[in-house]
Amino acid sequence: MEQSRDELFEQVAAAIGYSFDGEIAIGGKYVSTIEHEDEIYVSGQIPRVGSTVVVTGRVGAETSLEQGKLAAKICAMRALALLQRSLGDLGRVKKILRITVYVQSAPDFTQQSEVADGASEVLHTVFSSSGVHTRTSVGVLQLPKNAAVELDMIAVVESATQDNGAQD
Amino acid sequence: MEQSRDELFEQVAAAIGYSFDGEIAIGGKYVSTIEHEDEIYVSGQIPRVGSTVVVTGRVGAETSLEQGKLAAKICAMRALALLQRSLGDLGRVKKILRITVYVQSAPDFTQQSEVADGASEVLHTVFSSSGVHTRTSVGVLQLPKNAAVELDMIAVVESATQDNGAQD
Amino acid sequence: MEQSRDELFEQVAAAIGYSFDGEIAIGGKYVSTIEHEDEIYVSGQIPRVGSTVVVTGRVGAETSLEQGKLAAKICAMRALALLQRSLGDLGRVKKILRITVYVQSAPDFTQQSEVADGASEVLHTVFSSSGVHTRTSVGVLQLPKNAAVELDMIAVVESATQDNGAQD
Repeated sequence: MEQSRDELFEQVAAAIGYSFDGEIAIGGKYVSTIEHEDEIYVSGQIPRVGSTVVVTGRVGAETSLEQGKLAAKICAMRALALLQRSLGDLGRVKKILRITVYVQSAPDFTQQSEVADGASEVLHTVFSSSGVHTRTSVGVLQLPKNAAVELDMIAVVESATQDNGAQD
Repeated sequence: MEQSRDELFEQVAAAIGYSFDGEIAIGGKYVSTIEHEDEIYVSGQIPRVGSTVVVTGRVGAETSLEQGKLAAKICAMRALALLQRSLGDLGRVKKILRITVYVQSAPDFTQQSEVADGASEVLHTVFSSSGVHTRTSVGVLQLPKNAAVELDMIAVVESATQDNGAQD
Repeated sequence: MEQSRDELFEQVAAAIGYSFDGEIAIGGKYVSTIEHEDEIYVSGQIPRVGSTVVVTGRVGAETSLEQGKLAAKICAMRALALLQRSLGDLGRVKKILRITVYVQSAPDFTQQSEVADGASEVLHTVFSSSGVHTRTSVGVLQLPKNAAVELDMIAVVESATQDNGAQD
Protein backbone atom coordinates (compact mmCIF):
# COMPACT_ATOMS: atom_id res chain seq x y z
CA MET A 1 0.00 0.00 0.00
CA GLU A 2 1.32 3.41 -0.92
CA GLN A 3 2.45 5.56 1.96
CA SER A 4 1.02 9.01 2.45
CA ARG A 5 3.30 11.99 2.22
CA ASP A 6 2.75 12.66 5.90
CA GLU A 7 3.96 9.13 6.67
CA LEU A 8 7.00 9.65 4.44
CA PHE A 9 7.64 12.94 6.23
CA GLU A 10 7.72 11.11 9.58
CA GLN A 11 10.09 8.51 8.15
CA VAL A 12 12.53 11.19 7.02
CA ALA A 13 12.28 12.84 10.45
CA ALA A 14 13.11 9.51 12.08
CA ALA A 15 15.96 8.86 9.64
CA ILE A 16 17.67 12.17 10.37
CA GLY A 17 16.93 11.86 14.07
CA TYR A 18 14.88 14.99 14.72
CA SER A 19 11.22 15.57 15.53
CA PHE A 20 9.26 18.39 13.92
CA ASP A 21 6.15 17.88 16.04
CA GLY A 22 6.65 20.90 18.26
CA GLU A 23 6.04 24.53 17.54
CA ILE A 24 8.02 25.78 14.55
CA ALA A 25 9.35 28.97 16.07
CA ILE A 26 10.40 31.79 13.83
CA GLY A 27 11.90 35.05 14.93
CA GLY A 28 10.96 38.55 13.97
CA LYS A 29 7.85 40.36 12.88
CA TYR A 30 6.74 38.22 10.00
CA VAL A 31 4.83 35.02 9.35
CA SER A 32 5.93 31.53 8.37
CA THR A 33 3.70 31.08 5.34
CA ILE A 34 1.38 33.14 3.17
CA GLU A 35 -1.04 31.70 0.65
CA HIS A 36 -2.08 33.60 -2.43
CA GLU A 37 -4.38 31.92 -4.91
CA ASP A 38 -2.84 28.48 -5.34
CA GLU A 39 0.69 29.44 -4.29
CA ILE A 40 2.18 29.34 -0.82
CA TYR A 41 5.33 31.19 0.16
CA VAL A 42 7.45 29.85 3.03
CA SER A 43 9.77 32.18 4.96
CA GLY A 44 13.48 31.44 5.14
CA GLN A 45 14.09 28.45 7.40
CA ILE A 46 17.25 27.73 9.37
CA PRO A 47 18.05 24.27 10.86
CA ARG A 48 16.35 25.01 14.14
CA VAL A 49 14.65 22.22 16.06
CA GLY A 50 12.71 23.51 19.04
CA SER A 51 14.79 26.42 20.27
CA THR A 52 18.17 25.11 19.12
CA VAL A 53 19.91 25.74 15.81
CA VAL A 54 21.36 22.28 15.42
CA VAL A 55 23.87 22.93 12.63
CA THR A 56 25.87 26.16 12.79
CA GLY A 57 29.10 27.48 11.32
CA ARG A 58 30.77 27.75 7.94
CA VAL A 59 30.43 24.74 5.69
CA GLY A 60 33.88 23.82 4.41
CA ALA A 61 35.59 25.09 7.56
CA GLU A 62 34.32 24.15 11.04
CA THR A 63 31.26 22.46 9.52
CA SER A 64 31.59 19.51 7.14
CA LEU A 65 29.83 18.96 3.83
CA GLU A 66 27.86 16.15 5.48
CA GLN A 67 26.76 18.42 8.32
CA GLY A 68 25.80 21.06 5.76
CA LYS A 69 23.70 18.53 3.88
CA LEU A 70 22.01 17.55 7.12
CA ALA A 71 21.30 21.23 7.77
CA ALA A 72 19.69 21.53 4.34
CA LYS A 73 17.55 18.50 5.10
CA ILE A 74 16.38 20.00 8.39
CA CYS A 75 15.56 23.32 6.68
CA ALA A 76 13.50 21.45 4.08
CA MET A 77 11.73 19.44 6.79
CA ARG A 78 10.88 22.64 8.65
CA ALA A 79 9.44 24.11 5.47
CA LEU A 80 7.35 20.96 4.99
CA ALA A 81 6.26 20.99 8.63
CA LEU A 82 5.02 24.56 8.07
CA LEU A 83 3.16 23.49 4.92
CA GLN A 84 1.57 20.67 6.93
CA ARG A 85 0.36 23.08 9.61
CA SER A 86 -0.90 25.58 7.07
CA LEU A 87 -2.55 23.17 4.65
CA GLY A 88 -3.67 20.39 7.01
CA ASP A 89 -1.62 17.72 5.29
CA LEU A 90 1.11 17.41 2.69
CA GLY A 91 -1.23 15.65 0.28
CA ARG A 92 -2.43 19.09 -0.84
CA VAL A 93 1.01 20.11 -2.18
CA LYS A 94 0.83 19.98 -5.97
CA LYS A 95 4.36 21.03 -6.84
CA ILE A 96 7.37 22.95 -5.58
CA LEU A 97 8.17 25.92 -7.80
CA ARG A 98 11.39 27.09 -6.19
CA ILE A 99 13.75 26.56 -3.33
CA THR A 100 16.58 28.96 -2.66
CA VAL A 101 19.36 27.52 -0.52
CA TYR A 102 21.81 29.86 1.18
CA VAL A 103 24.92 28.11 2.50
CA GLN A 104 27.16 29.80 5.06
CA SER A 105 30.44 29.01 3.34
CA ALA A 106 34.14 29.01 3.90
CA PRO A 107 35.79 31.34 1.35
CA ASP A 108 37.07 28.46 -0.79
CA PHE A 109 34.06 26.12 -0.38
CA THR A 110 32.37 25.62 -3.75
CA GLN A 111 30.07 22.65 -3.11
CA GLN A 112 26.90 24.63 -2.35
CA SER A 113 25.01 22.43 -4.85
CA GLU A 114 25.98 19.30 -2.94
CA VAL A 115 24.75 20.87 0.30
CA ALA A 116 21.47 21.83 -1.36
CA ASP A 117 21.07 18.24 -2.58
CA GLY A 118 20.14 17.41 1.02
CA ALA A 119 17.00 19.52 0.65
CA SER A 120 16.26 18.15 -2.82
CA GLU A 121 16.51 14.59 -1.50
CA VAL A 122 13.92 15.32 1.19
CA LEU A 123 11.54 16.74 -1.40
CA HIS A 124 12.04 13.73 -3.63
CA THR A 125 11.49 11.27 -0.76
CA VAL A 126 8.29 12.91 0.44
CA PHE A 127 6.75 14.02 -2.85
CA SER A 128 8.27 11.65 -5.39
CA SER A 129 7.85 13.09 -8.91
CA SER A 130 5.74 15.99 -7.60
CA GLY A 131 8.80 17.04 -5.63
CA VAL A 132 10.76 18.21 -8.66
CA HIS A 133 11.62 21.86 -8.22
CA THR A 134 13.79 24.66 -9.51
CA ARG A 135 16.65 25.56 -7.26
CA THR A 136 19.18 28.27 -6.61
CA SER A 137 22.05 27.64 -4.22
CA VAL A 138 24.60 30.26 -3.23
CA GLY A 139 27.37 30.65 -0.68
CA VAL A 140 26.80 33.50 1.73
CA LEU A 141 29.04 35.07 4.35
CA GLN A 142 26.77 34.64 7.34
CA LEU A 143 23.23 33.64 8.32
CA PRO A 144 20.91 34.46 11.23
CA LYS A 145 22.03 32.80 14.48
CA ASN A 146 25.15 31.47 12.75
CA ALA A 147 23.01 28.87 10.95
CA ALA A 148 24.91 26.75 8.43
CA VAL A 149 22.07 26.84 5.87
CA GLU A 150 18.90 28.83 5.19
CA LEU A 151 16.18 27.77 2.74
CA ASP A 152 13.02 29.38 1.45
CA MET A 153 10.31 27.88 -0.76
CA ILE A 154 7.39 28.59 -3.06
CA ALA A 155 4.91 25.73 -3.50
CA VAL A 156 1.69 25.21 -5.43
CA VAL A 157 -1.34 23.91 -3.57
CA GLU A 158 -4.05 21.62 -4.83
CA SER A 159 -7.18 23.44 -3.87
CA ALA A 160 -10.55 21.80 -3.40
CA THR A 161 -12.11 25.09 -4.41
CA GLN A 162 -9.82 25.89 -7.28
CA ASP A 163 -12.55 25.75 -9.89
CA ASN A 164 -14.70 28.50 -8.46
CA GLY A 165 -12.01 31.15 -8.74
CA ALA A 166 -12.65 32.33 -5.19
CA GLN A 167 -9.75 30.73 -3.34
CA ASP A 168 -8.09 34.00 -2.40
CA MET B 1 -10.65 58.70 12.07
CA GLU B 2 -8.47 56.01 10.58
CA GLN B 3 -5.40 57.22 8.80
CA SER B 4 -4.75 56.23 5.22
CA ARG B 5 -1.71 54.14 4.41
CA ASP B 6 -0.26 57.05 2.49
CA GLU B 7 -0.54 59.20 5.62
CA LEU B 8 1.11 56.47 7.68
CA PHE B 9 3.85 56.26 5.07
CA GLU B 10 4.54 59.99 5.48
CA GLN B 11 4.62 59.60 9.27
CA VAL B 12 7.24 56.86 9.02
CA ALA B 13 9.26 59.01 6.62
CA ALA B 14 9.14 61.88 9.12
CA ALA B 15 10.03 59.57 12.01
CA ILE B 16 13.16 58.25 10.31
CA GLY B 17 14.03 61.71 8.99
CA TYR B 18 14.10 61.13 5.27
CA SER B 19 11.84 62.21 2.44
CA PHE B 20 10.84 59.85 -0.35
CA ASP B 21 9.08 62.51 -2.42
CA GLY B 22 11.78 62.83 -5.07
CA GLU B 23 12.62 60.57 -7.94
CA ILE B 24 13.42 57.04 -6.82
CA ALA B 25 16.56 56.53 -8.87
CA ILE B 26 17.65 53.05 -9.74
CA GLY B 27 20.74 52.12 -11.66
CA GLY B 28 21.16 49.75 -14.54
CA LYS B 29 19.05 48.51 -17.40
CA TYR B 30 15.98 47.32 -15.60
CA VAL B 31 12.79 48.70 -14.11
CA SER B 32 11.69 49.36 -10.55
CA THR B 33 8.43 47.43 -10.63
CA ILE B 34 6.58 45.02 -12.89
CA GLU B 35 2.95 44.04 -12.48
CA HIS B 36 1.63 40.68 -13.59
CA GLU B 37 -1.97 39.85 -12.96
CA ASP B 38 -2.48 40.85 -9.34
CA GLU B 39 1.16 40.60 -8.30
CA ILE B 40 3.79 43.33 -8.37
CA TYR B 41 7.53 42.64 -8.20
CA VAL B 42 9.83 45.33 -6.82
CA SER B 43 13.52 45.40 -7.77
CA GLY B 44 16.19 45.19 -5.08
CA GLN B 45 16.31 48.47 -3.15
CA ILE B 46 19.33 49.89 -1.34
CA PRO B 47 19.04 52.67 1.28
CA ARG B 48 19.45 55.45 -1.24
CA VAL B 49 17.69 58.76 -0.72
CA GLY B 50 18.02 61.04 -3.70
CA SER B 51 21.48 60.28 -5.04
CA THR B 52 23.07 59.30 -1.72
CA VAL B 53 23.30 55.84 -0.20
CA VAL B 54 22.73 56.91 3.39
CA VAL B 55 23.79 53.73 5.19
CA THR B 56 26.87 51.92 3.90
CA GLY B 57 29.36 49.40 5.26
CA ARG B 58 29.33 46.08 7.04
CA VAL B 59 26.76 45.67 9.76
CA GLY B 60 28.52 44.37 12.86
CA ALA B 61 31.78 46.11 11.97
CA GLU B 62 31.87 49.77 10.90
CA THR B 63 28.05 49.90 10.83
CA SER B 64 25.97 49.25 13.94
CA LEU B 65 22.91 47.04 14.29
CA GLU B 66 20.82 50.19 14.78
CA GLN B 67 22.19 51.71 11.57
CA GLY B 68 21.51 48.42 9.78
CA LYS B 69 17.94 48.46 11.00
CA LEU B 70 17.55 52.03 9.78
CA ALA B 71 18.93 50.91 6.41
CA ALA B 72 16.31 48.15 6.26
CA LYS B 73 13.60 50.70 7.05
CA ILE B 74 14.77 53.00 4.26
CA CYS B 75 14.87 50.07 1.78
CA ALA B 76 11.30 49.16 2.74
CA MET B 77 10.18 52.78 2.42
CA ARG B 78 11.75 52.98 -1.05
CA ALA B 79 9.89 49.83 -2.06
CA LEU B 80 6.64 51.35 -0.77
CA ALA B 81 7.36 54.65 -2.52
CA LEU B 82 7.74 52.67 -5.76
CA LEU B 83 4.45 50.86 -5.11
CA GLN B 84 2.81 54.26 -4.53
CA ARG B 85 4.09 55.61 -7.84
CA SER B 86 3.12 52.48 -9.72
CA LEU B 87 -0.30 51.89 -8.14
CA GLY B 88 -1.39 55.46 -7.43
CA ASP B 89 -1.71 54.91 -3.70
CA LEU B 90 -0.81 52.32 -1.08
CA GLY B 91 -4.49 51.59 -0.41
CA ARG B 92 -4.36 49.20 -3.36
CA VAL B 93 -1.79 46.88 -1.73
CA LYS B 94 -3.62 43.76 -0.60
CA LYS B 95 -0.77 41.81 0.94
CA ILE B 96 2.99 41.37 0.90
CA LEU B 97 3.99 37.89 -0.21
CA ARG B 98 7.73 38.07 0.32
CA ILE B 99 10.58 40.32 1.27
CA THR B 100 14.15 39.17 0.93
CA VAL B 101 16.63 41.15 3.00
CA TYR B 102 20.33 40.99 2.18
CA VAL B 103 22.56 42.38 4.93
CA GLN B 104 26.18 43.30 4.23
CA SER B 105 27.66 41.60 7.26
CA ALA B 106 30.81 41.36 9.26
CA PRO B 107 32.06 37.74 9.26
CA ASP B 108 30.82 37.08 12.80
CA PHE B 109 27.61 39.14 12.66
CA THR B 110 24.61 36.85 13.05
CA GLN B 111 21.74 39.29 13.75
CA GLN B 112 20.46 39.57 10.17
CA SER B 113 16.93 38.89 11.45
CA GLU B 114 17.13 41.84 13.81
CA VAL B 115 18.26 44.07 10.92
CA ALA B 116 15.39 42.81 8.77
CA ASP B 117 12.96 43.60 11.60
CA GLY B 118 13.41 47.25 10.60
CA ALA B 119 11.72 46.50 7.28
CA SER B 120 9.04 44.37 8.91
CA GLU B 121 8.22 47.17 11.34
CA VAL B 122 7.68 49.60 8.47
CA LEU B 123 5.32 47.16 6.78
CA HIS B 124 3.40 46.65 10.01
CA THR B 125 3.11 50.39 10.68
CA VAL B 126 1.86 51.21 7.19
CA PHE B 127 -0.29 48.17 6.42
CA SER B 128 -1.25 46.86 9.88
CA SER B 129 -2.43 43.27 9.58
CA SER B 130 -2.25 43.37 5.76
CA GLY B 131 1.48 43.94 6.17
CA VAL B 132 2.22 40.43 7.36
CA HIS B 133 4.71 38.85 5.00
CA THR B 134 7.10 35.96 4.55
CA ARG B 135 10.71 36.91 4.89
CA THR B 136 14.19 35.64 4.16
CA SER B 137 17.20 37.44 5.60
CA VAL B 138 20.79 36.51 4.82
CA GLY B 139 24.23 37.96 5.42
CA VAL B 140 26.10 38.74 2.20
CA LEU B 141 29.69 39.77 1.57
CA GLN B 142 29.01 42.95 -0.33
CA LEU B 143 26.21 44.96 -1.94
CA PRO B 144 26.00 47.48 -4.78
CA LYS B 145 27.55 50.86 -3.86
CA ASN B 146 28.65 49.44 -0.51
CA ALA B 147 25.03 49.57 0.72
CA ALA B 148 24.50 48.10 4.18
CA VAL B 149 21.21 46.43 3.19
CA GLU B 150 19.31 45.48 0.04
CA LEU B 151 15.64 44.43 -0.02
CA ASP B 152 13.31 43.16 -2.71
CA MET B 153 9.57 42.51 -2.51
CA ILE B 154 6.59 40.77 -4.08
CA ALA B 155 3.19 42.26 -3.26
CA VAL B 156 -0.40 41.49 -4.19
CA VAL B 157 -2.55 44.29 -5.55
CA GLU B 158 -6.26 44.87 -5.04
CA SER B 159 -7.49 45.36 -8.54
CA ALA B 160 -10.70 47.15 -9.47
CA THR B 161 -10.81 45.02 -12.58
CA GLN B 162 -9.86 41.73 -10.98
CA ASP B 163 -13.16 40.09 -11.76
CA ASN B 164 -13.02 40.45 -15.51
CA GLY B 165 -9.83 38.41 -15.87
CA ALA B 166 -8.30 41.03 -18.16
CA GLN B 167 -5.99 42.82 -15.80
CA ASP B 168 -2.81 41.72 -17.51
CA MET C 1 12.36 42.52 -41.78
CA GLU C 2 12.24 42.13 -38.07
CA GLN C 3 14.41 39.41 -36.64
CA SER C 4 12.92 36.71 -34.46
CA ARG C 5 14.01 36.44 -30.86
CA ASP C 6 15.62 33.10 -31.64
CA GLU C 7 17.71 34.78 -34.34
CA LEU C 8 18.67 37.55 -31.93
CA PHE C 9 19.61 34.87 -29.40
CA GLU C 10 22.00 33.29 -31.92
CA GLN C 11 23.51 36.69 -32.68
CA VAL C 12 24.24 37.31 -29.02
CA ALA C 13 25.76 33.82 -28.75
CA ALA C 14 28.02 34.59 -31.71
CA ALA C 15 28.95 38.00 -30.31
CA ILE C 16 30.07 36.61 -26.96
CA GLY C 17 31.72 33.63 -28.64
CA TYR C 18 29.90 30.71 -27.06
CA SER C 19 27.39 28.20 -28.37
CA PHE C 20 24.36 27.17 -26.35
CA ASP C 21 23.25 24.45 -28.76
CA GLY C 22 24.37 21.52 -26.61
CA GLU C 23 22.79 20.03 -23.58
CA ILE C 24 22.35 22.54 -20.78
CA ALA C 25 23.68 20.44 -17.95
CA ILE C 26 22.62 21.18 -14.43
CA GLY C 27 23.82 19.43 -11.31
CA GLY C 28 21.83 18.05 -8.45
CA LYS C 29 18.43 16.60 -7.94
CA TYR C 30 16.24 19.30 -9.38
CA VAL C 31 15.00 20.51 -12.74
CA SER C 32 15.96 23.44 -14.94
CA THR C 33 12.51 24.93 -15.38
CA ILE C 34 9.01 24.54 -13.98
CA GLU C 35 5.91 26.06 -15.50
CA HIS C 36 2.90 26.99 -13.42
CA GLU C 37 -0.03 28.66 -15.09
CA ASP C 38 1.58 31.35 -17.23
CA GLU C 39 4.78 31.64 -15.21
CA ILE C 40 8.02 29.75 -15.69
CA TYR C 41 10.72 29.51 -13.03
CA VAL C 42 14.33 28.93 -14.11
CA SER C 43 16.85 27.37 -11.71
CA GLY C 44 20.01 29.25 -10.81
CA GLN C 45 22.40 29.28 -13.76
CA ILE C 46 26.17 29.56 -13.59
CA PRO C 47 28.33 30.48 -16.63
CA ARG C 48 28.80 26.90 -17.74
CA VAL C 49 29.12 26.07 -21.42
CA GLY C 50 29.10 22.35 -22.05
CA SER C 51 30.90 20.92 -19.03
CA THR C 52 33.13 23.92 -18.36
CA VAL C 53 32.44 26.87 -16.07
CA VAL C 54 34.01 29.51 -18.27
CA VAL C 55 34.21 32.39 -15.79
CA THR C 56 35.28 31.58 -12.24
CA GLY C 57 36.68 33.48 -9.27
CA ARG C 58 35.95 36.62 -7.32
CA VAL C 59 34.92 39.64 -9.35
CA GLY C 60 37.08 42.57 -8.26
CA ALA C 61 40.01 40.34 -7.40
CA GLU C 62 41.25 37.62 -9.77
CA THR C 63 38.28 38.23 -12.09
CA SER C 64 37.70 41.62 -13.73
CA LEU C 65 34.47 43.58 -13.97
CA GLU C 66 34.43 42.86 -17.71
CA GLN C 67 34.80 39.12 -17.10
CA GLY C 68 32.05 39.32 -14.49
CA LYS C 69 29.77 41.04 -17.00
CA LEU C 70 30.53 38.32 -19.54
CA ALA C 71 29.66 35.73 -16.90
CA ALA C 72 26.31 37.46 -16.31
CA LYS C 73 25.66 37.41 -20.05
CA ILE C 74 26.39 33.69 -20.26
CA CYS C 75 24.11 32.98 -17.28
CA ALA C 76 21.31 34.93 -18.97
CA MET C 77 21.91 33.11 -22.27
CA ARG C 78 21.71 29.76 -20.47
CA ALA C 79 18.43 30.78 -18.88
CA LEU C 80 17.11 31.77 -22.31
CA ALA C 81 18.38 28.52 -23.85
CA LEU C 82 16.41 26.66 -21.18
CA LEU C 83 13.30 28.72 -21.94
CA GLN C 84 13.76 27.89 -25.64
CA ARG C 85 13.93 24.16 -24.91
CA SER C 86 10.96 24.28 -22.56
CA LEU C 87 8.71 26.56 -24.60
CA GLY C 88 9.74 25.65 -28.14
CA ASP C 89 10.86 29.14 -29.03
CA LEU C 90 11.54 32.47 -27.34
CA GLY C 91 8.61 34.09 -29.13
CA ARG C 92 6.37 32.73 -26.39
CA VAL C 93 8.08 34.74 -23.63
CA LYS C 94 5.75 37.58 -22.68
CA LYS C 95 7.78 39.27 -20.02
CA ILE C 96 10.53 38.74 -17.46
CA LEU C 97 9.28 39.31 -13.92
CA ARG C 98 12.53 38.97 -12.02
CA ILE C 99 16.17 38.12 -12.31
CA THR C 100 18.33 37.71 -9.24
CA VAL C 101 22.05 38.04 -9.90
CA TYR C 102 24.53 36.70 -7.37
CA VAL C 103 28.09 37.94 -7.91
CA GLN C 104 31.04 36.19 -6.28
CA SER C 105 32.75 39.32 -5.01
CA ALA C 106 35.99 40.54 -3.57
CA PRO C 107 35.34 42.06 -0.12
CA ASP C 108 35.61 45.63 -1.40
CA PHE C 109 33.94 45.13 -4.79
CA THR C 110 30.73 47.17 -4.95
CA GLN C 111 29.88 47.12 -8.68
CA GLN C 112 27.44 44.17 -8.58
CA SER C 113 24.92 46.28 -10.52
CA GLU C 114 27.39 46.80 -13.33
CA VAL C 115 28.05 43.04 -13.49
CA ALA C 116 24.30 42.37 -13.60
CA ASP C 117 23.96 44.87 -16.45
CA GLY C 118 25.50 42.14 -18.63
CA ALA C 119 22.42 40.00 -18.08
CA SER C 120 20.05 42.95 -18.52
CA GLU C 121 21.71 43.81 -21.85
CA VAL C 122 21.13 40.28 -23.15
CA LEU C 123 17.45 40.49 -22.19
CA HIS C 124 17.12 43.86 -23.89
CA THR C 125 18.84 42.66 -27.06
CA VAL C 126 16.72 39.53 -27.39
CA PHE C 127 13.34 40.78 -26.14
CA SER C 128 13.52 44.53 -26.75
CA SER C 129 10.86 46.29 -24.65
CA SER C 130 9.40 42.95 -23.48
CA GLY C 131 12.77 42.30 -21.86
CA VAL C 132 12.30 44.88 -19.10
CA HIS C 133 12.53 43.17 -15.77
CA THR C 134 12.93 43.71 -12.05
CA ARG C 135 16.34 42.85 -10.73
CA THR C 136 18.19 42.17 -7.52
CA SER C 137 21.97 41.94 -7.53
CA VAL C 138 24.05 41.05 -4.51
CA GLY C 139 27.65 40.18 -3.75
CA VAL C 140 28.08 36.73 -2.28
CA LEU C 141 31.07 34.98 -0.75
CA GLN C 142 31.14 31.93 -3.00
CA LEU C 143 29.13 30.12 -5.67
CA PRO C 144 28.85 26.50 -6.83
CA LYS C 145 31.96 25.38 -8.74
CA ASN C 146 33.65 28.70 -8.01
CA ALA C 147 31.41 30.36 -10.62
CA ALA C 148 31.83 34.13 -10.84
CA VAL C 149 28.09 34.73 -11.23
CA GLU C 150 24.80 32.89 -10.71
CA LEU C 151 21.43 34.06 -12.04
CA ASP C 152 17.87 32.84 -11.66
CA MET C 153 14.73 34.03 -13.43
CA ILE C 154 10.94 34.11 -13.39
CA ALA C 155 9.29 34.75 -16.76
CA VAL C 156 5.72 35.01 -18.02
CA VAL C 157 4.69 32.92 -20.98
CA GLU C 158 2.25 33.77 -23.73
CA SER C 159 -0.06 30.79 -23.78
CA ALA C 160 -2.15 29.73 -26.75
CA THR C 161 -4.62 28.29 -24.27
CA GLN C 162 -4.61 31.12 -21.77
CA ASP C 163 -8.26 31.98 -22.31
CA ASN C 164 -9.68 28.65 -21.25
CA GLY C 165 -8.24 28.78 -17.74
CA ALA C 166 -6.91 25.22 -18.07
CA GLN C 167 -3.24 25.86 -18.77
CA ASP C 168 -1.96 24.26 -15.61
